[in-house]
Amino acid sequence: MSPTPVTTASPVAPASYSWEATNEEVAARYGVSIDRIIRFDLNTSPAPPALTFEVLARGRFETPLSEYPPSDYRRLVDAAAARYGVAPDELLVGAGADEILDLAGKAFLPPGGRAVIPTPSYAMYRVITEQRAATVQAVPRRSAAEGWAIDVAAIRAAARDADVVWLCSPNNPTALAEPDGAIASLLDGLAADAATDRRPPPAVILDEAYAEFTGRSLVGLRTAYERLVIVRTASKAYALAGLRVGFAIARPATIAEMAPYRPPGSVATTSVTVVTEALRSPGLLDANLARVERERARLAAGLRDAGWAVSPSVTNFLLADLGTPERAAATAEGLLRRGLVPRTFPAGHPLASSLRVTIRDTDDNTLLVTAAREISQETPR
Amino acid sequence: MSPTPVTTASPVAPASYSWEATNEEVAARYGVSIDRIIRFDLNTSPAPPALTFEVLARGRFETPLSEYPPSDYRRLVDAAAARYGVAPDELLVGAGADEILDLAGKAFLPPGGRAVIPTPSYAMYRVITEQRAATVQAVPRRSAAEGWAIDVAAIRAAARDADVVWLCSPNNPTALAEPDGAIASLLDGLAADAATDRRPPPAVILDEAYAEFTGRSLVGLRTAYERLVIVRTASKAYALAGLRVGFAIARPATIAEMAPYRPPGSVATTSVTVVTEALRSPGLLDANLARVERERARLAAGLRDAGWAVSPSVTNFLLADLGTPERAAATAEGLLRRGLVPRTFPAGHPLASSLRVTIRDTDDNTLLVTAAREISQETPR
Repeated sequence: MSPTPVTTASPVAPASYSWEATNEEVAARYGVSIDRIIRFDLNTSPAPPALTFEVLARGRFETPLSEYPPSDYRRLVDAAAARYGVAPDELLVGAGADEILDLAGKAFLPPGGRAVIPTPSYAMYRVITEQRAATVQAVPRRSAAEGWAIDVAAIRAAARDADVVWLCSPNNPTALAEPDGAIASLLDGLAADAATDRRPPPAVILDEAYAEFTGRSLVGLRTAYERLVIVRTASKAYALAGLRVGFAIARPATIAEMAPYRPPGSVATTSVTVVTEALRSPGLLDANLARVERERARLAAGLRDAGWAVSPSVTNFLLADLGTPERAAATAEGLLRRGLVPRTFPAGHPLASSLRVTIRDTDDNTLLVTAAREISQETPR
Repeated sequence: MSPTPVTTASPVAPASYSWEATNEEVAARYGVSIDRIIRFDLNTSPAPPALTFEVLARGRFETPLSEYPPSDYRRLVDAAAARYGVAPDELLVGAGADEILDLAGKAFLPPGGRAVIPTPSYAMYRVITEQRAATVQAVPRRSAAEGWAIDVAAIRAAARDADVVWLCSPNNPTALAEPDGAIASLLDGLAADAATDRRPPPAVILDEAYAEFTGRSLVGLRTAYERLVIVRTASKAYALAGLRVGFAIARPATIAEMAPYRPPGSVATTSVTVVTEALRSPGLLDANLARVERERARLAAGLRDAGWAVSPSVTNFLLADLGTPERAAATAEGLLRRGLVPRTFPAGHPLASSLRVTIRDTDDNTLLVTAAREISQETPR
């Protein structure tokens, strides 16, 4: 068996940039019916909330769909501000968290600038940095045994002349939040270093895409560090990735630095209306969070039984070490032949021996566990 | 009466950047009920096509709304390619034409680069250029009597060291297409100059947002000039501005230069599905194009009766000269007090004496004509 890469690099993209294979591509490459493809690689949720269909079917949106979306997204901003416990002028809307990251790059990363990334982390931070003609300084995280925590001292040292520090907590793909106090301590250090060096502190972009799964957020730190931007999204716990809505939360002066780069209307009116209603619905998250908590334990146990070394997780996905890059690749290949799409990591990546899988619903997770057992028997260590 | 500006500048934005006032802002400032606000300033259509509601109510989208949109937008790309008569690898999808313009800026405008804009034109070209830390060389268009045509020789001279030339035909806000052959001649000249200077020719971004209203497109020129990017949109003739879908059309090698900057999924799945269906529906445009043609003549005649010097138009909007900036501002103020929102131009703009109004449906247009007559009587020349 000759394992092939799971992600399909765009034939035209820079080497650092790749998109996920589509369902059609996976189906064609692995000879699986498209109906049998299940995405364990995108950290999404199994189904959108029921109100999505109610709102869309009602057909009443805050502005007619022939008009542009309201340029200030006022109702959405108010709903999100109330939900996140911030003021409306501390919030900015984007077409998914990815557009928020792009706006942060435009606002804070000058050409030739420098950005620090604790690695491994979400690949988009590097892409956005390099597309700004800025350079990345990667700072390795501590070991798996140390919970993949950020190395505060090393980040401070690397950030001495940086424009931006990209953080992600809970971190993708390592599935854990930073230790209590680590980010607050880092922010204090960055501020102190900047004061010593008599220069503005770097902007810190803290991606909290998975915060709801932990029940905690560091939004409160924005008052302690003016150039902190917290990124939130409707894509993960709200189960609305298809609608493309994300948010930046920061002090008003920092939002004001990003706002000029925001396009007048990148978020569809349908998305604006549905996400506004979702944010306003008390209890809407409950079932999804309960599902993740219940299935996380069950899926982790099942995969461990199949021989996967599953790491602790506070998120809606699991990271598992398969022992060697070859075994990880062979396992991914076996899953793909069954239509189950895991996230793999390329050769040379610190997680090349690992796979990352989304916690889906009971039926999907059972299929994954069954497949993992079968593959484990097919490919003995 | 002290006329106030019609567009609301964002308090945080650079001076060059402003958003339209929202319905709420107009209602509050002018003491009009929000239900009475009619947007004549956005060049949109009065209502979306009926299939929009059918598709949304059906609730079946090409991927579940809890998943990310398909990263290659395959069905949408195929539908758009068929509609525009190009190959799928000659097409790229964005969150509205504005994201296409942003991607063009990222791909073709290096920091410190130069862009040529025939002015007046759509304000976003300047915003994107300046946000890339590049500079704008504005080249004035010929006179109104000459149909606001581009000055081919002057653009060629200005583009001698340019990275990008931004074109718009039919041009917003002047409402006419470039004369037959003008753009082809410009492209030939740019290619000849680049060959003489032994450098790559500038990328030419040709915004055809209003092309459907003329029944003609310059998409065919892409084979004559490799670095030509044609911009199309679902926002204008398709009456789907609220869904945020736009396209770049270019030779495959030029699409390949832009593709790495495209985010994996900035367009909502709901928008992907609806616009795919709209592009595939023969005759969907017919009623909207017929409305514009019929109402254009009627609205122009009515406004001329009210004393407006209405220019010829091949688009879904009219440009009218009110004689002086003061009269234009007073007329705008009178319209706004009635809830009718025109596009104004700031002091110092070559069109500061003019207003631009969207051609809407019969009832809306009648309200506009009636208001124009009343205001004309209130404010004699």
